[in-house]
Amino acid sequence: MKVVALAGGTGGAKLAHGLQAVLSPGDLHVIVNTGDDTERHGLVVMPDHDAVLYMLSGRFDDDRGWGISGETWTVMDALAELGEPTWFRLGDRDFATHIARTARLREGSTLTAAVLAIQDALGIPTRILPMTDTSVPTQVRTDAGWLDFQEYFVHQAQAPEVREIRFSGMEAALPTDEVAAALAAADVVIIGPSNPLVSVGPILAVPGMTDLLATARARDVPVIAVSGIVGGVALKGPADRMLTSLGYESSARGVAAQYTEQIDGFVLDSVDTELEPSVAALGLRTLVTDTIMADHAGRARLAREVLAFAGTFRGAAA
Amino acid sequence: MKVVALAGGTGGAKLAHGLQAVLSPGDLHVIVNTGDDTERHGLVVMPDHDAVLYMLSGRFDDDRGWGISGETWTVMDALAELGEPTWFRLGDRDFATHIARTARLREGSTLTAAVLAIQDALGIPTRILPMTDTSVPTQVRTDAGWLDFQEYFVHQAQAPEVREIRFSGMEAALPTDEVAAALAAADVVIIGPSNPLVSVGPILAVPGMTDLLATARARDVPVIAVSGIVGGVALKGPADRMLTSLGYESSARGVAAQYTEQIDGFVLDSVDTELEPSVAALGLRTLVTDTIMADHAGRARLAREVLAFAGTFRGAAA
Repeated sequence: MKVVALAGGTGGAKLAHGLQAVLSPGDLHVIVNTGDDTERHGLVVMPDHDAVLYMLSGRFDDDRGWGISGETWTVMDALAELGEPTWFRLGDRDFATHIARTARLREGSTLTAAVLAIQDALGIPTRILPMTDTSVPTQVRTDAGWLDFQEYFVHQAQAPEVREIRFSGMEAALPTDEVAAALAAADVVIIGPSNPLVSVGPILAVPGMTDLLATARARDVPVIAVSGIVGGVALKGPADRMLTSLGYESSARGVAAQYTEQIDGFVLDSVDTELEPSVAALGLRTLVTDTIMADHAGRARLAREVLAFAGTFRGAAA
Repeated sequence: MKVVALAGGTGGAKLAHGLQAVLSPGDLHVIVNTGDDTERHGLVVMPDHDAVLYMLSGRFDDDRGWGISGETWTVMDALAELGEPTWFRLGDRDFATHIARTARLREGSTLTAAVLAIQDALGIPTRILPMTDTSVPTQVRTDAGWLDFQEYFVHQAQAPEVREIRFSGMEAALPTDEVAAALAAADVVIIGPSNPLVSVGPILAVPGMTDLLATARARDVPVIAVSGIVGGVALKGPADRMLTSLGYESSARGVAAQYTEQIDGFVLDSVDTELEPSVAALGLRTLVTDTIMADHAGRARLAREVLAFAGTFRGAAA
């Protein structure tokens, strides 16, 4: 069963890890948000791609919640001595990823080719595909004006309220050929439990992306989204506050409402059972289950349950 | 006393370290060879500049003979896992230098401004000036054809015989304004005991550089060279074999002959005392002393002796 997962950082990456564990090698493609990408110290840093990469290669630091486990900080400390800003922490092994990727980009490689080469070197069985090869940096408007996403997310620790979100340059972006091919071959599409506004939102905002999803659905491929909001709060990150400050409901139903036009089914957590009828009222079929993924086994369990749910849709490949 | 030293890697860097130790802060400028500069993993690496930088900031690894003492190799090992070539070893703290410098260059900084910012951050009292801001990569012709310098020097460990040397793009290069100003303000110019062909040679080959030296000499500034060949052999590196394969004499006299047009005085090691008359016969005044610089005290001692020797020339500032 060919599965395409849409993912931002941690939540989507965890579900992708579960999917990789239960699918045959090569059957999972992850389309990853690149709106968070930034340049630090002249190097191209891709927080969402790398969260998925490190998760799928078994190197993610689950305790810290980002980066590589067992990481060291020699380069960052030396950069501090050289007067470089250090609010965006990068570990030594993480730096190697950014160095190798940026070197390929400077040589003229596309973003997709650059990251695939690194994925190949690490030997993961999954392809992690940037949603687009061009730069589409996410920016958020706060009461202090527009901020680059990482300035808001890391430097200002998500303290300001978000009044508006934009993806700079998105009007000229296109899904890559690899993304289009993966969606054309998909039997199931799963939108992971990532922030609907700044993780999944940019993916769906790439011109042509929703058409690719519509084409898949037209051949009876189910598109299933998993809520990243549980009991009204985001498990990680500012999705709950963002939904509220932008006038949406911070709930699983509020997430489902973001995706109504694009999806067939919606997965919400058991603690949100009482919301199930109102999600169903959006015209969506629902699965209510434990979505927390507390450990590796939990990731695989949720992946199996979501795939089983997808299998109940008309036309889904068995 | 304002001193300008011309330096390549280790030998010139050691003498620069000695000069820094005995001069007033701010009185030493080092003009450094950039022909060895290379791009590794997309980062601009400057072996000669960095040898001087690490030497003058007390961080050079004297035992290993390159890089920073106490260095770790996490990034390099991680790059190896990512399939990057690893024959050009770079330590973690060294990587930070290359990352910070390359970031500034990508932002549009000149090479000189980029390295001065790093020197300022490290608080060294000396200015280390690239001989030119444009790229002039040294290439050597071997029996297998033309090789980039680091391919010859590091990857092939200087095994091939060098048949010819060229500095690509040198015809369009210029000394920087900072180099011209340093030479215009100099009371003494010292050519360090670096390889005359591929360390000092590129500096003197920058169009206009020998004119700047001639202008300095016209106002009675002595130019003194120190031999990097002692007892017929190079203390480090392939200078001896290069001199021989290119048809020169591998001796202190052979080095002096390279510089005859540019210098007033020549310093040769005590083991080469018997060569002193033939060096003098080139029209040069000579100093014979211990040039080995076995430790930090030895660097300062040689610096003092060379400066005293310079002081004996007509017109040299006391």
